[in-house]
Amino acid sequence: MGNTFGKIFRLTTFGESHGKAIGGIIDGCSAGLELDFENIQKQLDRRKPGQSKITTQRKESDTVEFLSGIFEGKTTGTPIGFVIKNEDQKSKDYSYLKDTFRPSHADFTYQAKYGIRDYRGGGRSSARETACRVVAGAIAQQLLIMVGVHVKAYVSVVGSVKMNKCHNELDLSKVDTNIVRCPDAEIAERMIAEIEQIRKEGDTIGGEITALATGVPAGWGEPVFDKLHAEIGKAMLSINAVHGFKYGFGGVDISSSRGSKVNDSLVDESGKTKTNYSGGIQGGISNGNNIYCEVAFKPVATIMQKQDTIDKDGNIVEIKGKGRHDACVVPRAVTIVESMMALTLVDTYLRNKAHKI
Amino acid sequence: MGNTFGKIFRLTTFGESHGKAIGGIIDGCSAGLELDFENIQKQLDRRKPGQSKITTQRKESDTVEFLSGIFEGKTTGTPIGFVIKNEDQKSKDYSYLKDTFRPSHADFTYQAKYGIRDYRGGGRSSARETACRVVAGAIAQQLLIMVGVHVKAYVSVVGSVKMNKCHNELDLSKVDTNIVRCPDAEIAERMIAEIEQIRKEGDTIGGEITALATGVPAGWGEPVFDKLHAEIGKAMLSINAVHGFKYGFGGVDISSSRGSKVNDSLVDESGKTKTNYSGGIQGGISNGNNIYCEVAFKPVATIMQKQDTIDKDGNIVEIKGKGRHDACVVPRAVTIVESMMALTLVDTYLRNKAHKI
Amino acid sequence: MGNTFGKIFRLTTFGESHGKAIGGIIDGCSAGLELDFENIQKQLDRRKPGQSKITTQRKESDTVEFLSGIFEGKTTGTPIGFVIKNEDQKSKDYSYLKDTFRPSHADFTYQAKYGIRDYRGGGRSSARETACRVVAGAIAQQLLIMVGVHVKAYVSVVGSVKMNKCHNELDLSKVDTNIVRCPDAEIAERMIAEIEQIRKEGDTIGGEITALATGVPAGWGEPVFDKLHAEIGKAMLSINAVHGFKYGFGGVDISSSRGSKVNDSLVDESGKTKTNYSGGIQGGISNGNNIYCEVAFKPVATIMQKQDTIDKDGNIVEIKGKGRHDACVVPRAVTIVESMMALTLVDTYLRNKAHKI
Amino acid sequence: MGNTFGKIFRLTTFGESHGKAIGGIIDGCSAGLELDFENIQKQLDRRKPGQSKITTQRKESDTVEFLSGIFEGKTTGTPIGFVIKNEDQKSKDYSYLKDTFRPSHADFTYQAKYGIRDYRGGGRSSARETACRVVAGAIAQQLLIMVGVHVKAYVSVVGSVKMNKCHNELDLSKVDTNIVRCPDAEIAERMIAEIEQIRKEGDTIGGEITALATGVPAGWGEPVFDKLHAEIGKAMLSINAVHGFKYGFGGVDISSSRGSKVNDSLVDESGKTKTNYSGGIQGGISNGNNIYCEVAFKPVATIMQKQDTIDKDGNIVEIKGKGRHDACVVPRAVTIVESMMALTLVDTYLRNKAHKI
Repeated sequence: MGNTFGKIFRLTTFGESHGKAIGGIIDGCSAGLELDFENIQKQLDRRKPGQSKITTQRKESDTVEFLSGIFEGKTTGTPIGFVIKNEDQKSKDYSYLKDTFRPSHADFTYQAKYGIRDYRGGGRSSARETACRVVAGAIAQQLLIMVGVHVKAYVSVVGSVKMNKCHNELDLSKVDTNIVRCPDAEIAERMIAEIEQIRKEGDTIGGEITALATGVPAGWGEPVFDKLHAEIGKAMLSINAVHGFKYGFGGVDISSSRGSKVNDSLVDESGKTKTNYSGGIQGGISNGNNIYCEVAFKPVATIMQKQDTIDKDGNIVEIKGKGRHDACVVPRAVTIVESMMALTLVDTYLRNKAHKI
Repeated sequence: MGNTFGKIFRLTTFGESHGKAIGGIIDGCSAGLELDFENIQKQLDRRKPGQSKITTQRKESDTVEFLSGIFEGKTTGTPIGFVIKNEDQKSKDYSYLKDTFRPSHADFTYQAKYGIRDYRGGGRSSARETACRVVAGAIAQQLLIMVGVHVKAYVSVVGSVKMNKCHNELDLSKVDTNIVRCPDAEIAERMIAEIEQIRKEGDTIGGEITALATGVPAGWGEPVFDKLHAEIGKAMLSINAVHGFKYGFGGVDISSSRGSKVNDSLVDESGKTKTNYSGGIQGGISNGNNIYCEVAFKPVATIMQKQDTIDKDGNIVEIKGKGRHDACVVPRAVTIVESMMALTLVDTYLRNKAHKI
Repeated sequence: MGNTFGKIFRLTTFGESHGKAIGGIIDGCSAGLELDFENIQKQLDRRKPGQSKITTQRKESDTVEFLSGIFEGKTTGTPIGFVIKNEDQKSKDYSYLKDTFRPSHADFTYQAKYGIRDYRGGGRSSARETACRVVAGAIAQQLLIMVGVHVKAYVSVVGSVKMNKCHNELDLSKVDTNIVRCPDAEIAERMIAEIEQIRKEGDTIGGEITALATGVPAGWGEPVFDKLHAEIGKAMLSINAVHGFKYGFGGVDISSSRGSKVNDSLVDESGKTKTNYSGGIQGGISNGNNIYCEVAFKPVATIMQKQDTIDKDGNIVEIKGKGRHDACVVPRAVTIVESMMALTLVDTYLRNKAHKI
Repeated sequence: MGNTFGKIFRLTTFGESHGKAIGGIIDGCSAGLELDFENIQKQLDRRKPGQSKITTQRKESDTVEFLSGIFEGKTTGTPIGFVIKNEDQKSKDYSYLKDTFRPSHADFTYQAKYGIRDYRGGGRSSARETACRVVAGAIAQQLLIMVGVHVKAYVSVVGSVKMNKCHNELDLSKVDTNIVRCPDAEIAERMIAEIEQIRKEGDTIGGEITALATGVPAGWGEPVFDKLHAEIGKAMLSINAVHGFKYGFGGVDISSSRGSKVNDSLVDESGKTKTNYSGGIQGGISNGNNIYCEVAFKPVATIMQKQDTIDKDGNIVEIKGKGRHDACVVPRAVTIVESMMALTLVDTYLRNKAHKI
């Protein structure tokens, strides 16, 4: 029941990792937007498996096919249906998952909730679903660019390697110049080394992605419950493996900070502030400054080590990860974070327009 | 447009801090619930100003009046309308706020969004609005208790004083034995001292609240976008001054943790796990273990020191906080955090029931 | 759970006929609208009981009190909370309804659904609830007038008296020149006579109201499920006692008409058509012509004659209407129909604006 | 923005008549339902073109392919994605529609709303979209049968041929024994003759479908805005060409009826009533009796006669229908009406379950 995101620009997704296809419907996309299909595919490619030595070696082309809502290259305002075929679906033997619940996976909870589950490769709980978010997020970004808003994300932490630089000290055009997607070349190398080391140990590691939106004018966001940062937070927390969210405050600890230090003084009537601890949002409404947030990912649950778990009858059994998995998800998740930021912003933008006379 | 919370158990609120009244409507509350009105008022009293030496000294009785949806002490399934009068509304002179935008307040953003604002005491952006959440949250808690779910929150950090204890090392019956609402008496004293010191300096300080829900069975939560923790996160982030959210992981840093250390092994078919880094949720669905999260509050924006800001014409002006404000909001926010947890859980519970045949 | 109307301009209502008050919250009303409070009260007065010899003689002043969302006479974009006190609430003895289910009332169904009900005067199922719709509808009309849209309704049928005239043959400024609210003076007299005769017989009679909206530009409406006429239809059918809805087609029978007779030929690029059988809507989207529809009300269920029914134990008992009831609801329902038309149109207007880039 | 139907059992559809495919996503379908795929296809076949001499002679197989949400023949509770390919998409020349707006079609309104449209075969406004409703409606019916609810519709009026029989005088097992889908064999023949005559004249004719739901227990429906009949009415009015809706009252005229004649007396505590003018619903909540309604369809707008219209530059041009169109839609619309009834009921059923403790 929770497979729709947004109130006006609405994405609904479907699909399991090993069914015939995943896909979605975007309802409420503005009409007349000329789509850059190459860019959409490029965003998908940044998420797809097998793209570098530090990601899973599974191969899947993740090609999106649009079925409706587009005419002569432009959106028509009617729903945009799309599918991405699951090429890898057949073959492999997943019967070992049928009756066993992997530690820190959603096997047990899906079974408990629905009484039935497609156990192959995690089914609906697989992060494969996020490819649909990237399709919609890419379109959302193209729409946002029309109104001057740009979204960008990058890896800021991998395990013990923490960048500790503010987004305005970084050259974000360099995010994709390395495979870990950290704009600081030197730190990127250390991150890559950390991931390779972790993988050799058959282990996995967490990480952090920072997201940035520039060009958002003052006035977006719908208090009191749908505050802009609450919507962004929900969007990020809905991504697989995300456990933490913080907006604004840069490298500063929120709870030990003082008002006299972190209050942002306004400097002109555009809403520009001297500092930006607020992260571009006041009272749940954008204030015209950069919007930024940090998203913390837990380590991937599938490890190449033996772990105890239970089967459906409650017997303790030993399990060990098979196959080709990421040792750290953040490099591939950068485009997902951008997508969720863009989906939230475009929906907020359209909601804000709605209530003007 | 964002003044409703929930899909089935829905709270809609209204009201500005200095209008005639604040209030709300709860639609979708189950019928036949016998309400404990004293308990509702008690929860309101935990939030109200003037309750102790470390909170604002403003006096407001915050008495809730129910107008509908209750018959002979029981809910009838029809909407519950309620109001809380603003006793303090008249008098004071707020004209100095008319044309000035306070730093790190929502004055500027409301003006930018709507082109008009009730500037008295922050208007709609005032945290006074959260009293309505407490009314609904108290009812939500009473309903949850009927199905064995209990919600509890407490202060875990005030400025530099961090408790660093897990909820299961604490006696949560002691939360209200001190005015800061930290269940550890010794740490509570240090927190109180910190707040008093900060206030003397005319400054404000941030803090953190930990929330806990026990008794939630496996199966609650609606992936992929309405994952249980995403809904809880949104709920918490919608509270005034909240900037950060983390679920599970106890005192452990998310991004530097390893799969081999933080995977939770299942120990029996009820879903019980050996550890609970997952915070009681897997794949967005409750797994039967304790649900817990940490909510980080920034320092109150109103400080008793001079700050630069601008007026509506863009002139730089100096401003200094007046009146009676909290130096730290977390003691009064404990009940708000509990309320948002309860509202999220009760809605999730009812949603989960909805899709069974 | 169904007490909210609209997606952007949202009305949520609460209240039983004999509770303390009824009221509502309007969320999503555009900011900066200067309200005409006298007009709002005037619309309420057109609905209130006791206004003429052909309506119920109950007396209730139906005075609305606004609690929020308005500052210095203008809407602020924040939720507008309002209440209407129930003056008549105390006194009367309703215990005879406690255990008896009146024929063609909602007594039985509320009891069956909720297991509990406020039986006094019909409780939540009373048409008293529609007063809240009139408050919101009056504000919606004021907003629509800003964009050139005018809404008007009138009585076209009372029992056997059918007007059989198209809206453009009528002078709608005369609707309120008689107590039955039919713009044709002669027919109005016959309608009044019919109602008086029916009342003398202790019986009740059905009727029909025609609603008209002028000035709606081409482009409003959200296919495929939220077609403009589907939303208007739902709005009308949600009014107490409404059993039928028809849009367009004037006096013509829909099902026996032929394409060659009822197709509306376009005559210029504004969308103007030679005829208007379509009722101003094509494919669920307004086409720039007048929007009109007919709404059929069943007779009031409470009659001053003996009827058989059952009590809660299933015993057959005899019941006879008490008190002061309408013999025909349509004169008082004109303003309710206008309100539901306005609420639907304003929401559709704002939704349409939302998805432009 | 209006392409989703339902609150819990939610159908979202996409697709234009001449794009690659149409399709949809069902979110919120209960888990564990064993699907009868033959039955789903059979319902589609009852709607598809080319099925008899009185329907359009276009050929399209309308084969549905399910992509997700089903595992080993059973629903899993996750979203059910499906597509129906458009086989007829290529070929034909639709350029004559590019710049011309057909009378009483949605060509003009889509252009006015979106500034762009897929003009081929009506695009999104084509009734082809309703095939997706039939897929979801068939699943909804299968779920309803599990709780004892059966939905059935039939043609009751074609042009001047009106059946004038109540559903309980008819043998509804005979609906599909003739091509017009009227359960009375003799009247069916007259209807077929009427359609053939109209077609020979190059004209089109309206009609009426009656829908019936049996087995709905007392208690379904969500007042005050989402009354059961208001939701059914909206569902029916959202079907292409529907202009009128009436529930209950059988062959009786609503507005000229008297309370003493049409009040339904309760006869036992199950809610059974002596008569059923109420159509199985009181106060917006089902009362345990049969639910029935009448749905009036206007004549198809495409006629094989010359008509005046305008082109995009406002020039008057003459147009004449081409191709293979229905002279009367009701025979093919029976399954669509059943689908919308089933979709409304299953959603109402699940909503009603949601708010029990």
